[in-house]
Amino acid sequence: MSPDLVHDLMQGPLAIAHLGLEDVMSGARSSGVAVSQVAFQPPAGGDPKRLQKLSALRKPKIAEAIDQANQQGLDKLLAAQPQLVGVGIAGDWIPGMEADLFLHAGPPIEWARMSGPLRGAVIGGILLEGLAQTPAQAEQLAAAGKIRFAPCHHHQTVGPMAGLVTSSMPVWIIEDLHSGQRSFCTLNEGLGKVLRYGAYSPEVIERLGFMANILAPILSETLQAHGPIDLKMLMAQALHMGDEGHNRNRAGTSLLIRELAPAMVRLKRDSAEIAQVLAFIHSNDHFFLNLSMPMAKCILAGVEDLPFSSMLSVMARNGTDFGIQLACLPGRWFIGKAQDIEGLYFPGFSKEDANPDIGDSTIMETVGIGGFAMAAAPAIVQFVGGTADDALETTRRMGQITIGRNPIWTIPQLGFAGAPTGIDLQKVIELNMLPAINTGIAHREPGIGQVGAGLTSPPWECFHQAFDAFYEHCQQLKEVTNATD
Amino acid sequence: MSPDLVHDLMQGPLAIAHLGLEDVMSGARSSGVAVSQVAFQPPAGGDPKRLQKLSALRKPKIAEAIDQANQQGLDKLLAAQPQLVGVGIAGDWIPGMEADLFLHAGPPIEWARMSGPLRGAVIGGILLEGLAQTPAQAEQLAAAGKIRFAPCHHHQTVGPMAGLVTSSMPVWIIEDLHSGQRSFCTLNEGLGKVLRYGAYSPEVIERLGFMANILAPILSETLQAHGPIDLKMLMAQALHMGDEGHNRNRAGTSLLIRELAPAMVRLKRDSAEIAQVLAFIHSNDHFFLNLSMPMAKCILAGVEDLPFSSMLSVMARNGTDFGIQLACLPGRWFIGKAQDIEGLYFPGFSKEDANPDIGDSTIMETVGIGGFAMAAAPAIVQFVGGTADDALETTRRMGQITIGRNPIWTIPQLGFAGAPTGIDLQKVIELNMLPAINTGIAHREPGIGQVGAGLTSPPWECFHQAFDAFYEHCQQLKEVTNATD
Repeated sequence: MSPDLVHDLMQGPLAIAHLGLEDVMSGARSSGVAVSQVAFQPPAGGDPKRLQKLSALRKPKIAEAIDQANQQGLDKLLAAQPQLVGVGIAGDWIPGMEADLFLHAGPPIEWARMSGPLRGAVIGGILLEGLAQTPAQAEQLAAAGKIRFAPCHHHQTVGPMAGLVTSSMPVWIIEDLHSGQRSFCTLNEGLGKVLRYGAYSPEVIERLGFMANILAPILSETLQAHGPIDLKMLMAQALHMGDEGHNRNRAGTSLLIRELAPAMVRLKRDSAEIAQVLAFIHSNDHFFLNLSMPMAKCILAGVEDLPFSSMLSVMARNGTDFGIQLACLPGRWFIGKAQDIEGLYFPGFSKEDANPDIGDSTIMETVGIGGFAMAAAPAIVQFVGGTADDALETTRRMGQITIGRNPIWTIPQLGFAGAPTGIDLQKVIELNMLPAINTGIAHREPGIGQVGAGLTSPPWECFHQAFDAFYEHCQQLKEVTNATD
Repeated sequence: MSPDLVHDLMQGPLAIAHLGLEDVMSGARSSGVAVSQVAFQPPAGGDPKRLQKLSALRKPKIAEAIDQANQQGLDKLLAAQPQLVGVGIAGDWIPGMEADLFLHAGPPIEWARMSGPLRGAVIGGILLEGLAQTPAQAEQLAAAGKIRFAPCHHHQTVGPMAGLVTSSMPVWIIEDLHSGQRSFCTLNEGLGKVLRYGAYSPEVIERLGFMANILAPILSETLQAHGPIDLKMLMAQALHMGDEGHNRNRAGTSLLIRELAPAMVRLKRDSAEIAQVLAFIHSNDHFFLNLSMPMAKCILAGVEDLPFSSMLSVMARNGTDFGIQLACLPGRWFIGKAQDIEGLYFPGFSKEDANPDIGDSTIMETVGIGGFAMAAAPAIVQFVGGTADDALETTRRMGQITIGRNPIWTIPQLGFAGAPTGIDLQKVIELNMLPAINTGIAHREPGIGQVGAGLTSPPWECFHQAFDAFYEHCQQLKEVTNATD
């Protein structure tokens, strides 16, 4: 209840304070009685079954076990020390990666159900790997089941938008100093017509060639000469420089360039190629996204098997479905329909052109960045819509559904409060409040590319399913508790 | 008056609203009467002479002439297009620069009255130019009047802290595309023991050698290859990345590196030297300050002869005196005592060690950046003190004493409002509100260096003198007005 409302109620003539449908009060209002409408949502959106389950989970011993597991999860998130250690070839580094395996963003999906941009990326991947000569042939090959598909997340990998990874692609190698856990991500291609937005024209394939043959080897040698880079600290600086780490990565990209440039220049390499690499990274403010994503994956890998924790360990979309995973139920997807995005469009495009939400980049929100850290990046509203106050408000709101704060990732705009970290499924259900996501928008047809950026949320279905499964999972706990009572 | 107070006054029992000394109301308060204290400052701080002059200047025809001149001034500020065009040697490029002339920050000052850090910088300059072999000899030379001193501002130059410029030093060359006006500044040396903070040990002189022999030629050739850089646009980006352009320049420095690196690498130059240059700039987040300062000087040069404008064209300090200049009275200094700085100190230093306010860097506040744009840089409060809310409030307050807003330099945190631009002497006097400055703190002894950073204001004396002179200046206008009435 707002302080103003309390003040109004405590003095002056009697008035009505109303919790509920606003229309009900139109009669009272029209007869001159003052009506204060109170913004109120019943817990769990008023759903009686979920309310009952929530209250069962809040019984002291069960609640204590869940809270302990969540605290342990938060401690693990905060203890991770993800470092950028190198660049390698996907087939050499990603566990289980083989020539006929194509990784993609989001939960599992087969060709028949794939959205336009993911199909476009698959076509591009087939052409890149030389498995077909034309897009039509590539499409036939995919439709004939000749390609095996698997989510990036099944291979400790993440990918923005379509998130396609094939075996010959270069990938960043991230390693957690603390746990030894590794994670992987391709290198960012830039804006416009790019594979991750479903484009596969010759310029796209040619650029991927430059990335494999020039960009990746130079970055690999540079990192060998430079030594590992502490990504958590770089992210902390970027949050003080107006990035939120999902749709605004200009600071992270700038900091990476200045950090690597001296070592890169010292390589015994053709200076024209080094200049080309520096110019390529400079031309693409999202270059750092493909580092912050595997950093987040590397951190969250630490909570992928944490019984009784209600923390989310994955949120990811493949352009058709939105899937989440829980820390307590490793590998199990809870799936709903990928949502539309409210956003701003590039000139010449509109909502009609937009594919539903796509990409593994929601790993940023899962770890407490992106939509959760929007307060740090007021300038992002020019790209995704809304106002600077909305950005502050979004971070404040997300603090209600998270387990804690990240003391390393502080937000100057909120008095250096830590970014809200560790999404708590129970709080999402109780407060009936979905995670806020900001994201790029892909064209719904294959072959075109990015058309805008905006704000969205996961579908409720995944959270409702996940909550039922979490409740089931906690039954073990109940039995244990009953047995020892 | 705050909305809460209005609300209190409009209902409930009668109460006292009091404007004035709070103690007067203690009697009423103790007898149980509700007393609301109103924050109130009389115009011109209640000074009757200045009030009279203010009111004379607000007579319609005079006010119209002043407002027109101010609008013209604002238009000129906003029309400027300062570009970084090159790097040259001070003696070759700065008008009137000669071997025995030493430029310094702030208003004119002779050796006898110079503060420790300025003396230290002069000693370093003498050693650098080979005019003496030891610091003691250098001091004797300076004390014997063998060095001519002049303010940087008398030579279209600006310098941070001591601001020392000698003829052999390399300087950035800035040019306004719009007016052809040029301005100059040395290259930033970095933190710690540096000449601009009054240090002159061998490492300082050696670094200046590297800057003249390697850094400057490489930057000069890079700029020739790259072409001019639009500094106003770079500053606009930096304001969206948490810089305020005076004490926080990490974004500006990062953007400069990524912009120049590809062209630098393409030079036919020893790659070890290029790597050294990139590492040197990377090691110093204030590198961009020595570009934003001459950018500001270049912009403000356009309002250095603007009859009847009450806009400030210069604010500068030499460590002993603080001087300001008015757009309508070119070249005339109004001088007061340089103030102490409220700030945060590096470990091992305290207020006792601090020199009063020093440097030409207040050109940033004069053009609407620095203290005036603090809202854009909430992270700066970790360096200069205060809270993120203070930073917002400072920019809001400075909007009350400026002529307009800069639509290119927007502040996301304030709904993309432009930075408050063009300090209006009349408003400073009327609202009794001094410009807010954030700045570095030099040790008061020569030879030591920076000890902290903080917040300060100019002394009132310069504004009171300037206001009297402005009033005098406007007498011409009065006669003209009377004659044509």
